[in-house]
Amino acid sequence: MSNDSATRISVGDALTPEDIAASGATAPELVAQYALRLGDDALILAQRLGWWISRAPELEEDMALANIALDQIGHARSFLTYAGSAWGKTEDDLAYFRDEEEFRNAWIVALENGDFGQTIARQLVIACYQHGLYTRLAASTDTTLAAIAAKALKEVDYHRDHAAQWVLRLALGTDESRRRLEHGLTVVWPYVDELFEDDALIENSELDGVAVRPSELRAGFDADIAAVFAQAELTVPDVQPSSTGGRRGEPHEQLGYILAEMQSLARKHPGATW
Amino acid sequence: MSNDSATRISVGDALTPEDIAASGATAPELVAQYALRLGDDALILAQRLGWWISRAPELEEDMALANIALDQIGHARSFLTYAGSAWGKTEDDLAYFRDEEEFRNAWIVALENGDFGQTIARQLVIACYQHGLYTRLAASTDTTLAAIAAKALKEVDYHRDHAAQWVLRLALGTDESRRRLEHGLTVVWPYVDELFEDDALIENSELDGVAVRPSELRAGFDADIAAVFAQAELTVPDVQPSSTGGRRGEPHEQLGYILAEMQSLARKHPGATW
Repeated sequence: MSNDSATRISVGDALTPEDIAASGATAPELVAQYALRLGDDALILAQRLGWWISRAPELEEDMALANIALDQIGHARSFLTYAGSAWGKTEDDLAYFRDEEEFRNAWIVALENGDFGQTIARQLVIACYQHGLYTRLAASTDTTLAAIAAKALKEVDYHRDHAAQWVLRLALGTDESRRRLEHGLTVVWPYVDELFEDDALIENSELDGVAVRPSELRAGFDADIAAVFAQAELTVPDVQPSSTGGRRGEPHEQLGYILAEMQSLARKHPGATW
Repeated sequence: MSNDSATRISVGDALTPEDIAASGATAPELVAQYALRLGDDALILAQRLGWWISRAPELEEDMALANIALDQIGHARSFLTYAGSAWGKTEDDLAYFRDEEEFRNAWIVALENGDFGQTIARQLVIACYQHGLYTRLAASTDTTLAAIAAKALKEVDYHRDHAAQWVLRLALGTDESRRRLEHGLTVVWPYVDELFEDDALIENSELDGVAVRPSELRAGFDADIAAVFAQAELTVPDVQPSSTGGRRGEPHEQLGYILAEMQSLARKHPGATW
Protein backbone atom coordinates (compact mmCIF):
# COMPACT_ATOMS: atom_id res chain seq x y z
CA MET A 1 0.00 0.00 0.00
CA SER A 2 1.26 3.44 -0.92
CA ASN A 3 2.27 5.44 2.13
CA ASP A 4 2.16 8.85 0.53
CA SER A 5 -1.42 8.57 -0.68
CA ALA A 6 -3.72 11.35 0.44
CA THR A 7 -6.66 9.00 0.19
CA ARG A 8 -5.40 6.09 2.23
CA ILE A 9 -8.25 3.74 3.02
CA SER A 10 -9.41 3.42 6.58
CA VAL A 11 -12.38 1.71 8.18
CA GLY A 12 -15.34 4.04 8.38
CA ASP A 13 -14.72 5.83 5.10
CA ALA A 14 -17.70 6.14 2.78
CA LEU A 15 -15.76 3.93 0.45
CA THR A 16 -16.27 3.92 -3.30
CA PRO A 17 -14.45 1.90 -5.95
CA GLU A 18 -12.98 5.21 -7.11
CA ASP A 19 -11.58 5.78 -3.60
CA ILE A 20 -9.97 2.37 -3.70
CA ALA A 21 -8.47 2.97 -7.13
CA ALA A 22 -7.26 6.42 -6.07
CA SER A 23 -5.79 5.17 -2.80
CA GLY A 24 -2.96 3.45 -4.64
CA ALA A 25 -3.54 0.37 -2.51
CA THR A 26 -2.23 -2.67 -4.35
CA ALA A 27 -3.49 -6.06 -3.30
CA PRO A 28 -0.85 -8.76 -2.83
CA GLU A 29 -1.48 -11.72 -5.16
CA LEU A 30 -3.15 -14.02 -2.63
CA VAL A 31 -5.25 -11.19 -1.20
CA ALA A 32 -6.41 -10.40 -4.73
CA GLN A 33 -7.41 -14.03 -5.27
CA TYR A 34 -9.39 -13.90 -2.05
CA ALA A 35 -11.05 -10.57 -2.91
CA LEU A 36 -12.00 -12.00 -6.30
CA ARG A 37 -14.08 -14.71 -4.64
CA LEU A 38 -16.04 -12.21 -2.57
CA GLY A 39 -16.47 -9.86 -5.51
CA ASP A 40 -17.69 -12.63 -7.80
CA ASP A 41 -20.23 -13.85 -5.23
CA ALA A 42 -21.67 -10.34 -4.98
CA LEU A 43 -21.58 -9.69 -8.73
CA ILE A 44 -23.35 -12.88 -9.80
CA LEU A 45 -25.93 -12.58 -7.03
CA ALA A 46 -26.65 -9.05 -8.22
CA GLN A 47 -27.28 -10.27 -11.75
CA ARG A 48 -29.72 -12.86 -10.45
CA LEU A 49 -31.56 -10.38 -8.21
CA GLY A 50 -31.70 -7.77 -10.95
CA TRP A 51 -34.00 -10.08 -12.89
CA TRP A 52 -36.74 -9.36 -10.37
CA ILE A 53 -36.91 -5.69 -11.29
CA SER A 54 -40.33 -5.22 -12.84
CA ARG A 55 -41.35 -8.77 -11.98
CA ALA A 56 -41.84 -8.72 -8.20
CA PRO A 57 -45.29 -9.28 -6.67
CA GLU A 58 -45.46 -5.75 -5.14
CA LEU A 59 -43.96 -2.40 -6.11
CA GLU A 60 -42.42 -2.11 -2.67
CA GLU A 61 -40.77 -5.49 -3.11
CA ASP A 62 -39.66 -4.59 -6.61
CA MET A 63 -37.73 -1.71 -5.06
CA ALA A 64 -36.41 -3.79 -2.17
CA LEU A 65 -34.91 -6.50 -4.38
CA ALA A 66 -33.53 -3.90 -6.76
CA ASN A 67 -31.90 -2.06 -3.87
CA ILE A 68 -30.35 -5.28 -2.61
CA ALA A 69 -29.05 -5.99 -6.12
CA LEU A 70 -27.56 -2.50 -6.26
CA ASP A 71 -25.88 -2.94 -2.89
CA GLN A 72 -24.33 -6.18 -4.12
CA ILE A 73 -23.08 -4.54 -7.32
CA GLY A 74 -21.51 -1.87 -5.12
CA HIS A 75 -19.74 -4.46 -2.99
CA ALA A 76 -18.63 -6.33 -6.10
CA ARG A 77 -17.17 -3.15 -7.60
CA SER A 78 -15.10 -2.53 -4.47
CA PHE A 79 -13.78 -6.08 -4.16
CA LEU A 80 -13.06 -6.33 -7.89
CA THR A 81 -11.33 -2.95 -7.99
CA TYR A 82 -9.06 -4.06 -5.17
CA ALA A 83 -8.45 -7.51 -6.69
CA GLY A 84 -7.66 -5.90 -10.04
CA SER A 85 -5.01 -3.68 -8.45
CA ALA A 86 -2.81 -6.76 -8.23
CA TRP A 87 -3.05 -7.40 -11.95
CA GLY A 88 -3.35 -3.95 -13.50
CA LYS A 89 -7.03 -4.54 -14.24
CA THR A 90 -10.14 -2.48 -13.59
CA GLU A 91 -13.43 -3.67 -12.13
CA ASP A 92 -14.88 -3.65 -15.65
CA ASP A 93 -11.98 -5.70 -17.02
CA LEU A 94 -12.73 -8.33 -14.41
CA ALA A 95 -16.52 -8.22 -14.73
CA TYR A 96 -16.78 -8.19 -18.50
CA PHE A 97 -13.62 -9.77 -19.90
CA ARG A 98 -13.17 -12.98 -17.95
CA ASP A 99 -14.49 -16.30 -19.17
CA GLU A 100 -16.57 -18.50 -16.94
CA GLU A 101 -13.73 -20.70 -15.69
CA GLU A 102 -11.97 -17.55 -14.45
CA PHE A 103 -14.84 -16.68 -12.10
CA ARG A 104 -14.60 -17.76 -8.47
CA ASN A 105 -18.14 -17.40 -7.15
CA ALA A 106 -19.77 -20.12 -5.08
CA TRP A 107 -22.40 -22.06 -7.01
CA ILE A 108 -25.32 -20.94 -4.86
CA VAL A 109 -25.35 -17.41 -6.30
CA ALA A 110 -25.59 -18.72 -9.86
CA LEU A 111 -28.63 -20.93 -9.22
CA GLU A 112 -31.74 -19.95 -11.15
CA ASN A 113 -34.08 -17.66 -9.24
CA GLY A 114 -36.95 -20.10 -9.32
CA ASP A 115 -40.09 -18.61 -7.83
CA PHE A 116 -40.16 -15.87 -5.22
CA GLY A 117 -40.00 -18.42 -2.40
CA GLN A 118 -36.80 -19.92 -3.81
CA THR A 119 -35.23 -16.48 -4.26
CA ILE A 120 -36.02 -15.66 -0.63
CA ALA A 121 -34.59 -18.99 0.53
CA ARG A 122 -31.31 -18.16 -1.22
CA GLN A 123 -31.37 -14.61 0.13
CA LEU A 124 -31.61 -15.89 3.67
CA VAL A 125 -28.60 -18.16 3.18
CA ILE A 126 -26.46 -15.54 1.46
CA ALA A 127 -27.36 -12.71 3.80
CA CYS A 128 -26.60 -14.76 6.93
CA TYR A 129 -23.34 -15.94 5.38
CA GLN A 130 -22.25 -12.48 4.24
CA HIS A 131 -23.24 -10.94 7.56
CA GLY A 132 -20.94 -13.26 9.47
CA LEU A 133 -18.21 -12.90 6.86
CA TYR A 134 -18.17 -9.11 6.74
CA THR A 135 -18.41 -8.83 10.52
CA ARG A 136 -15.11 -10.69 10.82
CA LEU A 137 -13.53 -9.23 7.71
CA ALA A 138 -14.04 -5.72 9.11
CA ALA A 139 -11.25 -6.66 11.55
CA SER A 140 -8.88 -7.82 8.80
CA THR A 141 -5.28 -6.63 8.99
CA ASP A 142 -5.67 -5.67 5.33
CA THR A 143 -7.13 -2.20 5.75
CA THR A 144 -8.74 -2.10 2.32
CA LEU A 145 -10.59 -5.38 2.82
CA ALA A 146 -11.56 -4.21 6.32
CA ALA A 147 -12.95 -0.94 4.99
CA ILE A 148 -14.95 -2.61 2.20
CA ALA A 149 -16.38 -5.11 4.67
CA ALA A 150 -17.30 -2.48 7.25
CA LYS A 151 -19.25 -0.51 4.68
CA ALA A 152 -20.91 -3.60 3.20
CA LEU A 153 -21.92 -4.88 6.61
CA LYS A 154 -24.40 -2.07 7.18
CA GLU A 155 -26.19 -2.98 3.97
CA VAL A 156 -26.06 -6.73 4.45
CA ASP A 157 -27.60 -6.22 7.87
CA TYR A 158 -30.70 -4.94 6.06
CA HIS A 159 -30.55 -7.81 3.54
CA ARG A 160 -30.63 -10.29 6.40
CA ASP A 161 -33.61 -8.58 8.02
CA HIS A 162 -35.40 -8.45 4.68
CA ALA A 163 -34.91 -12.15 4.03
CA ALA A 164 -35.85 -13.16 7.56
CA GLN A 165 -39.06 -11.12 7.45
CA TRP A 166 -40.07 -12.74 4.15
CA VAL A 167 -39.24 -16.22 5.45
CA LEU A 168 -41.60 -15.61 8.36
CA ARG A 169 -44.30 -14.17 6.13
CA LEU A 170 -44.13 -17.05 3.67
CA ALA A 171 -43.68 -19.83 6.23
CA LEU A 172 -46.55 -18.64 8.40
CA GLY A 173 -48.73 -17.39 5.52
CA THR A 174 -50.79 -19.83 3.46
CA ASP A 175 -50.24 -23.53 2.84
CA GLU A 176 -49.10 -22.62 -0.66
CA SER A 177 -46.59 -19.97 0.47
CA ARG A 178 -45.15 -22.36 3.04
CA ARG A 179 -44.91 -25.17 0.51
CA ARG A 180 -43.09 -22.93 -1.96
CA LEU A 181 -40.63 -21.63 0.62
CA GLU A 182 -39.91 -25.16 1.84
CA HIS A 183 -39.34 -26.25 -1.73
CA GLY A 184 -36.98 -23.30 -2.25
CA LEU A 185 -34.99 -24.23 0.84
CA THR A 186 -34.67 -27.79 -0.46
CA VAL A 187 -33.32 -26.50 -3.79
CA VAL A 188 -30.70 -24.14 -2.32
CA TRP A 189 -29.55 -26.14 0.69
CA PRO A 190 -27.26 -28.57 -1.20
CA TYR A 191 -25.13 -25.52 -2.08
CA VAL A 192 -24.72 -24.19 1.46
CA ASP A 193 -21.67 -26.27 2.43
CA GLU A 194 -19.49 -24.80 -0.32
CA LEU A 195 -19.67 -21.40 1.37
CA PHE A 196 -17.93 -22.78 4.45
CA GLU A 197 -15.18 -24.87 2.88
CA ASP A 198 -11.54 -24.00 3.55
CA ASP A 199 -9.04 -24.73 0.80
CA ALA A 200 -5.36 -24.24 -0.08
CA LEU A 201 -5.75 -20.48 -0.66
CA ILE A 202 -7.39 -19.92 2.71
CA GLU A 203 -4.88 -22.14 4.47
CA ASN A 204 -1.90 -20.25 3.10
CA SER A 205 -0.26 -18.55 6.07
CA GLU A 206 0.05 -15.31 4.11
CA LEU A 207 -3.69 -14.86 4.58
CA ASP A 208 -3.64 -15.37 8.37
CA GLY A 209 -5.45 -12.41 9.88
CA VAL A 210 -6.22 -11.08 6.39
CA ALA A 211 -8.90 -13.47 5.10
CA VAL A 212 -11.71 -15.04 7.09
CA ARG A 213 -11.61 -18.82 7.29
CA PRO A 214 -14.99 -19.96 5.91
CA SER A 215 -15.14 -22.91 8.30
CA GLU A 216 -15.09 -20.52 11.24
CA LEU A 217 -18.29 -18.89 10.02
CA ARG A 218 -20.36 -22.06 10.09
CA ALA A 219 -21.39 -22.05 13.74
CA GLY A 220 -22.61 -18.46 13.61
CA PHE A 221 -24.47 -19.16 10.38
CA ASP A 222 -26.17 -22.21 11.83
CA ALA A 223 -27.23 -20.20 14.87
CA ASP A 224 -28.65 -17.39 12.71
CA ILE A 225 -30.60 -19.88 10.62
CA ALA A 226 -31.80 -21.76 13.68
CA ALA A 227 -33.18 -18.55 15.17
CA VAL A 228 -35.16 -17.71 12.04
CA PHE A 229 -36.33 -21.28 11.51
CA ALA A 230 -37.51 -21.55 15.13
CA GLN A 231 -39.78 -18.54 14.65
CA ALA A 232 -40.89 -19.77 11.24
CA GLU A 233 -41.45 -23.35 12.45
CA LEU A 234 -39.09 -24.68 9.78
CA THR A 235 -36.40 -27.32 9.91
CA VAL A 236 -33.14 -27.52 7.99
CA PRO A 237 -33.83 -29.51 4.81
CA ASP A 238 -32.64 -33.09 4.93
CA VAL A 239 -30.72 -33.07 1.65
CA GLN A 240 -27.30 -34.20 0.50
CA PRO A 241 -24.70 -31.56 -0.40
CA SER A 242 -24.24 -31.08 -4.14
CA SER A 243 -20.90 -31.38 -5.82
CA THR A 244 -19.61 -27.85 -6.43
CA GLY A 245 -16.35 -26.21 -7.48
CA GLY A 246 -16.91 -22.49 -7.86
CA ARG A 247 -13.83 -21.50 -5.85
CA ARG A 248 -11.50 -23.56 -8.04
CA GLY A 249 -12.79 -22.51 -11.45
CA GLU A 250 -15.34 -25.23 -12.09
CA PRO A 251 -18.32 -23.03 -12.84
CA HIS A 252 -21.97 -23.82 -12.21
CA GLU A 253 -23.72 -24.77 -15.45
CA GLN A 254 -25.81 -21.58 -15.33
CA LEU A 255 -22.85 -19.20 -15.14
CA GLY A 256 -22.28 -19.13 -18.89
CA TYR A 257 -25.81 -17.87 -19.51
CA ILE A 258 -25.45 -15.17 -16.86
CA LEU A 259 -22.16 -13.97 -18.33
CA ALA A 260 -23.52 -14.00 -21.87
CA GLU A 261 -26.16 -11.50 -20.84
CA MET A 262 -23.91 -9.42 -18.62
CA GLN A 263 -20.89 -9.23 -20.90
CA SER A 264 -22.29 -8.98 -24.41
CA LEU A 265 -22.56 -5.20 -24.68
CA ALA A 266 -19.21 -4.49 -23.04
CA ARG A 267 -17.47 -7.05 -25.26
CA LYS A 268 -19.12 -5.84 -28.43
CA HIS A 269 -18.13 -2.25 -27.67
CA PRO A 270 -15.04 -2.24 -25.46
CA GLY A 271 -14.71 1.06 -23.64
CA ALA A 272 -18.44 1.64 -24.09
CA THR A 273 -17.76 4.42 -26.54
CA TRP A 274 -18.31 2.33 -29.64
CA MET B 1 -57.85 16.04 2.91
CA SER B 2 -58.38 14.99 6.50
CA ASN B 3 -57.88 17.87 8.91
CA ASP B 4 -57.25 15.78 11.97
CA SER B 5 -54.44 13.77 10.45
CA ALA B 6 -51.17 13.81 12.35
CA THR B 7 -49.31 13.10 9.12
CA ARG B 8 -50.67 15.85 6.91
CA ILE B 9 -48.52 16.16 3.80
CA SER B 10 -46.45 19.27 3.33
CA VAL B 11 -43.74 20.19 0.88
CA GLY B 12 -40.34 19.22 2.21
CA ASP B 13 -41.41 16.01 3.89
CA ALA B 14 -39.32 12.95 3.10
CA LEU B 15 -42.43 11.60 1.46
CA THR B 16 -43.15 7.90 1.07
CA PRO B 17 -46.19 6.20 -0.43
CA GLU B 18 -46.95 5.00 3.09
CA ASP B 19 -46.98 8.64 4.27
CA ILE B 20 -49.44 9.50 1.54
CA ALA B 21 -51.68 6.57 2.38
CA ALA B 22 -51.47 7.40 6.09
CA SER B 23 -52.15 11.11 5.56
CA GLY B 24 -55.78 10.42 4.72
CA ALA B 25 -55.44 12.73 1.71
CA THR B 26 -58.07 11.78 -0.86
CA ALA B 27 -57.56 12.93 -4.41
CA PRO B 28 -60.57 14.51 -6.12
CA GLU B 29 -61.56 12.57 -9.26
CA LEU B 30 -59.91 14.84 -11.81
CA VAL B 31 -56.75 15.19 -9.72
CA ALA B 32 -56.59 11.41 -9.52
CA GLN B 33 -56.87 11.15 -13.30
CA TYR B 34 -54.03 13.62 -13.62
CA ALA B 35 -51.86 11.87 -11.03
CA LEU B 36 -52.45 8.60 -12.87
CA ARG B 37 -50.81 9.99 -16.01
CA LEU B 38 -47.69 11.05 -14.13
CA GLY B 39 -47.54 7.78 -12.20
CA ASP B 40 -47.93 5.69 -15.34
CA ASP B 41 -45.18 7.58 -17.15
CA ALA B 42 -42.79 6.91 -14.26
CA LEU B 43 -43.85 3.28 -13.82
CA ILE B 44 -43.49 2.25 -17.45
CA LEU B 45 -40.19 4.11 -17.83
CA ALA B 46 -38.90 2.26 -14.76
CA GLN B 47 -39.78 -1.09 -16.33
CA ARG B 48 -37.88 -0.15 -19.47
CA LEU B 49 -34.82 1.09 -17.56
CA GLY B 50 -34.82 -1.93 -15.29
CA TRP B 51 -33.98 -4.08 -18.31
CA TRP B 52 -30.50 -2.55 -18.33
CA ILE B 53 -29.61 -4.01 -14.95
CA SER B 54 -26.85 -6.51 -15.66
CA ARG B 55 -26.67 -5.44 -19.29
CA ALA B 56 -25.01 -2.01 -19.18
CA PRO B 57 -21.56 -1.46 -20.69
CA GLU B 58 -19.95 -0.58 -17.32
CA LEU B 59 -20.65 -1.58 -13.74
CA GLU B 60 -20.91 2.08 -12.79
CA GLU B 61 -23.51 2.63 -15.52
CA ASP B 62 -25.33 -0.52 -14.49
CA MET B 63 -25.81 1.08 -11.08
CA ALA B 64 -26.69 4.50 -12.49
CA LEU B 65 -29.50 3.22 -14.72
CA ALA B 66 -30.77 0.97 -11.95
CA ASN B 67 -30.83 3.88 -9.55
CA ILE B 68 -32.75 5.99 -12.03
CA ALA B 69 -35.23 3.13 -12.50
CA LEU B 70 -35.63 2.90 -8.74
CA ASP B 71 -36.25 6.63 -8.43
CA GLN B 72 -38.94 6.37 -11.09
CA ILE B 73 -40.61 3.45 -9.32
CA GLY B 74 -40.59 5.57 -6.18
CA HIS B 75 -42.28 8.48 -7.96
CA ALA B 76 -44.78 6.11 -9.55
CA ARG B 77 -45.67 4.64 -6.18
CA SER B 78 -46.40 8.07 -4.76
CA PHE B 79 -48.51 9.26 -7.69
CA LEU B 80 -50.39 5.96 -7.91
CA THR B 81 -51.03 5.85 -4.18
CA TYR B 82 -52.53 9.32 -4.37
CA ALA B 83 -54.52 8.55 -7.52
CA GLY B 84 -55.83 5.36 -5.95
CA SER B 85 -57.10 7.27 -2.91
CA ALA B 86 -59.92 8.53 -5.14
CA TRP B 87 -61.04 5.03 -6.02
CA GLY B 88 -60.28 2.97 -2.94
CA LYS B 89 -57.33 1.34 -4.69
CA THR B 90 -53.71 0.80 -3.68
CA GLU B 91 -50.61 1.45 -5.76
CA ASP B 92 -50.38 -2.30 -6.38
CA ASP B 93 -54.02 -2.50 -7.50
CA LEU B 94 -53.27 0.17 -10.08
CA ALA B 95 -49.90 -1.20 -11.17
CA TYR B 96 -50.83 -4.86 -11.45
CA PHE B 97 -54.57 -5.08 -12.02
CA ARG B 98 -55.29 -2.66 -14.82
CA ASP B 99 -55.40 -3.69 -18.46
CA GLU B 100 -53.42 -1.80 -21.06
CA GLU B 101 -56.25 0.49 -22.18
CA GLU B 102 -56.57 1.68 -18.57
CA PHE B 103 -52.99 2.99 -18.52
CA ARG B 104 -52.39 6.67 -19.29
CA ASN B 105 -48.65 6.88 -19.97
CA ALA B 106 -47.29 8.78 -22.95
CA TRP B 107 -46.06 6.51 -25.71
CA ILE B 108 -42.42 7.56 -25.44
CA VAL B 109 -41.84 5.67 -22.18
CA ALA B 110 -43.11 2.41 -23.71
CA LEU B 111 -40.77 2.50 -26.70
CA GLU B 112 -38.27 -0.33 -26.86
CA ASN B 113 -34.90 0.48 -25.30
CA GLY B 114 -33.01 -0.03 -28.52
CA ASP B 115 -29.29 0.28 -28.00
CA PHE B 116 -27.63 2.32 -25.28
CA GLY B 117 -27.63 5.43 -27.49
CA GLN B 118 -31.38 5.21 -27.98
CA THR B 119 -31.97 4.71 -24.27
CA ILE B 120 -29.91 7.81 -23.53
CA ALA B 121 -31.80 9.81 -26.18
CA ARG B 122 -35.06 8.94 -24.46
CA GLN B 123 -33.60 9.68 -21.05
CA LEU B 124 -32.64 13.16 -22.15
CA VAL B 125 -36.16 13.88 -23.37
CA ILE B 126 -37.91 12.44 -20.33
CA ALA B 127 -35.56 14.00 -17.79
CA CYS B 128 -35.86 17.48 -19.32
CA TYR B 129 -39.64 17.10 -19.51
CA GLN B 130 -40.01 15.81 -15.95
CA HIS B 131 -37.64 18.44 -14.61
CA GLY B 132 -39.79 21.25 -15.98
CA LEU B 133 -42.97 19.49 -14.92
CA TYR B 134 -41.98 18.81 -11.33
CA THR B 135 -40.50 22.30 -10.92
CA ARG B 136 -43.94 23.78 -11.63
CA LEU B 137 -45.93 21.05 -9.94
CA ALA B 138 -44.04 21.70 -6.70
CA ALA B 139 -46.08 24.94 -6.56
CA SER B 140 -49.42 23.17 -7.09
CA THR B 141 -52.30 24.19 -4.83
CA ASP B 142 -52.80 20.46 -4.23
CA THR B 143 -50.37 19.96 -1.37
CA THR B 144 -49.94 16.23 -1.98
CA LEU B 145 -49.02 16.66 -5.64
CA ALA B 146 -46.73 19.53 -4.64
CA ALA B 147 -44.96 17.40 -2.05
CA ILE B 148 -44.49 14.45 -4.41
CA ALA B 149 -43.12 16.76 -7.10
CA ALA B 150 -40.75 18.56 -4.74
CA LYS B 151 -39.23 15.29 -3.63
CA ALA B 152 -39.05 13.87 -7.17
CA LEU B 153 -37.44 17.03 -8.51
CA LYS B 154 -34.21 16.46 -6.58
CA GLU B 155 -33.84 13.04 -8.17
CA VAL B 156 -34.86 14.10 -11.67
CA ASP B 157 -32.25 16.83 -11.49
CA TYR B 158 -29.65 14.06 -11.35
CA HIS B 159 -31.36 12.13 -14.15
CA ARG B 160 -31.10 15.20 -16.38
CA ASP B 161 -27.41 15.64 -15.59
CA HIS B 162 -26.78 11.94 -16.20
CA ALA B 163 -28.48 12.02 -19.61
CA ALA B 164 -26.81 15.26 -20.66
CA GLN B 165 -23.36 13.94 -19.74
CA TRP B 166 -23.92 10.79 -21.78
CA VAL B 167 -25.25 12.76 -24.74
CA LEU B 168 -22.03 14.77 -24.75
CA ARG B 169 -19.88 11.69 -24.33
CA LEU B 170 -21.59 9.81 -27.15
CA ALA B 171 -21.99 12.79 -29.50
CA LEU B 172 -18.36 13.86 -29.13
CA GLY B 173 -16.93 10.33 -28.81
CA THR B 174 -16.39 8.16 -31.87
CA ASP B 175 -18.13 8.27 -35.24
CA GLU B 176 -19.99 5.14 -34.22
CA SER B 177 -21.17 6.51 -30.86
CA ARG B 178 -22.37 9.71 -32.52
CA ARG B 179 -24.17 7.79 -35.25
CA ARG B 180 -25.94 5.64 -32.70
CA LEU B 181 -27.01 8.58 -30.57
CA GLU B 182 -28.29 10.46 -33.61
CA HIS B 183 -30.22 7.38 -34.67
CA GLY B 184 -31.69 7.12 -31.15
CA LEU B 185 -32.80 10.75 -31.25
CA THR B 186 -34.50 10.13 -34.59
CA VAL B 187 -36.38 7.17 -33.14
CA VAL B 188 -37.66 8.93 -30.02
CA TRP B 189 -38.33 12.42 -31.38
CA PRO B 190 -41.67 11.63 -33.06
CA TYR B 191 -43.03 10.92 -29.56
CA VAL B 192 -41.92 14.22 -27.97
CA ASP B 193 -44.97 16.28 -28.94
CA GLU B 194 -47.39 14.06 -27.02
CA LEU B 195 -45.75 15.11 -23.75
CA PHE B 196 -46.77 18.73 -24.35
CA GLU B 197 -50.35 18.31 -25.56
CA ASP B 198 -53.20 19.86 -23.56
CA ASP B 199 -56.52 18.04 -23.62
CA ALA B 200 -59.98 18.15 -22.05
CA LEU B 201 -58.77 16.94 -18.65
CA ILE B 202 -56.07 19.59 -18.43
CA GLU B 203 -58.42 22.29 -19.65
CA ASN B 204 -61.04 21.55 -17.01
CA SER B 205 -61.11 24.59 -14.71
CA GLU B 206 -61.08 22.33 -11.65
CA LEU B 207 -57.41 21.64 -12.37
CA ASP B 208 -56.42 25.32 -12.63
CA GLY B 209 -53.47 25.84 -10.31
CA VAL B 210 -53.49 22.11 -9.48
CA ALA B 211 -52.14 20.50 -12.65
CA VAL B 212 -49.40 21.83 -14.91
CA ARG B 213 -50.51 22.60 -18.48
CA PRO B 214 -48.20 20.50 -20.68
CA SER B 215 -48.13 23.17 -23.40
CA GLU B 216 -46.60 25.64 -20.95
CA LEU B 217 -43.61 23.34 -20.46
CA ARG B 218 -42.61 23.29 -24.12
CA ALA B 219 -40.53 26.48 -24.23
CA GLY B 220 -38.45 25.47 -21.20
CA PHE B 221 -37.96 22.00 -22.62
CA ASP B 222 -36.82 23.35 -25.99
CA ALA B 223 -34.35 25.64 -24.23
CA ASP B 224 -32.95 22.78 -22.14
CA ILE B 225 -32.52 20.62 -25.22
CA ALA B 226 -31.00 23.46 -27.21
CA ALA B 227 -28.38 24.02 -24.51
CA VAL B 228 -27.33 20.36 -24.51
CA PHE B 229 -27.44 20.08 -28.29
CA ALA B 230 -25.30 23.21 -28.72
CA GLN B 231 -22.56 21.67 -26.58
CA ALA B 232 -22.95 18.32 -28.29
CA GLU B 233 -23.08 19.83 -31.78
CA LEU B 234 -26.41 18.16 -32.45
CA THR B 235 -29.56 19.42 -34.11
CA VAL B 236 -33.17 18.54 -33.40
CA PRO B 237 -34.10 15.63 -35.68
CA ASP B 238 -36.16 16.60 -38.69
CA VAL B 239 -38.91 14.01 -38.26
CA GLN B 240 -42.70 14.04 -38.34
CA PRO B 241 -44.59 13.52 -35.07
CA SER B 242 -46.04 10.04 -34.67
CA SER B 243 -49.70 9.42 -34.00
CA THR B 244 -50.04 8.68 -30.29
CA GLY B 245 -52.87 8.35 -27.78
CA GLY B 246 -51.43 7.29 -24.44
CA ARG B 247 -53.31 9.89 -22.42
CA ARG B 248 -56.70 8.77 -23.77
CA GLY B 249 -56.31 5.03 -23.37
CA GLU B 250 -54.94 4.12 -26.78
CA PRO B 251 -51.84 2.26 -25.67
CA HIS B 252 -48.57 1.95 -27.52
CA GLU B 253 -48.25 -1.46 -29.14
CA GLN B 254 -45.41 -2.41 -26.77
CA LEU B 255 -47.38 -1.75 -23.58
CA GLY B 256 -49.03 -5.15 -23.56
CA TYR B 257 -45.66 -6.90 -23.49
CA ILE B 258 -44.41 -4.68 -20.68
CA LEU B 259 -47.52 -5.34 -18.60
CA ALA B 260 -47.40 -9.08 -19.25
CA GLU B 261 -43.97 -9.21 -17.65
CA MET B 262 -44.74 -6.79 -14.85
CA GLN B 263 -48.13 -8.14 -13.85
CA SER B 264 -47.87 -11.89 -14.25
CA LEU B 265 -46.66 -12.79 -10.76
CA ALA B 266 -48.99 -10.39 -8.94
CA ARG B 267 -51.98 -11.64 -10.95
CA LYS B 268 -51.14 -15.29 -10.48
CA HIS B 269 -50.79 -14.81 -6.75
CA PRO B 270 -52.93 -11.84 -5.66
CA GLY B 271 -51.73 -10.51 -2.33
CA ALA B 272 -48.34 -12.07 -2.93
CA THR B 273 -48.97 -14.60 -0.22
CA TRP B 274 -50.01 -17.42 -2.53
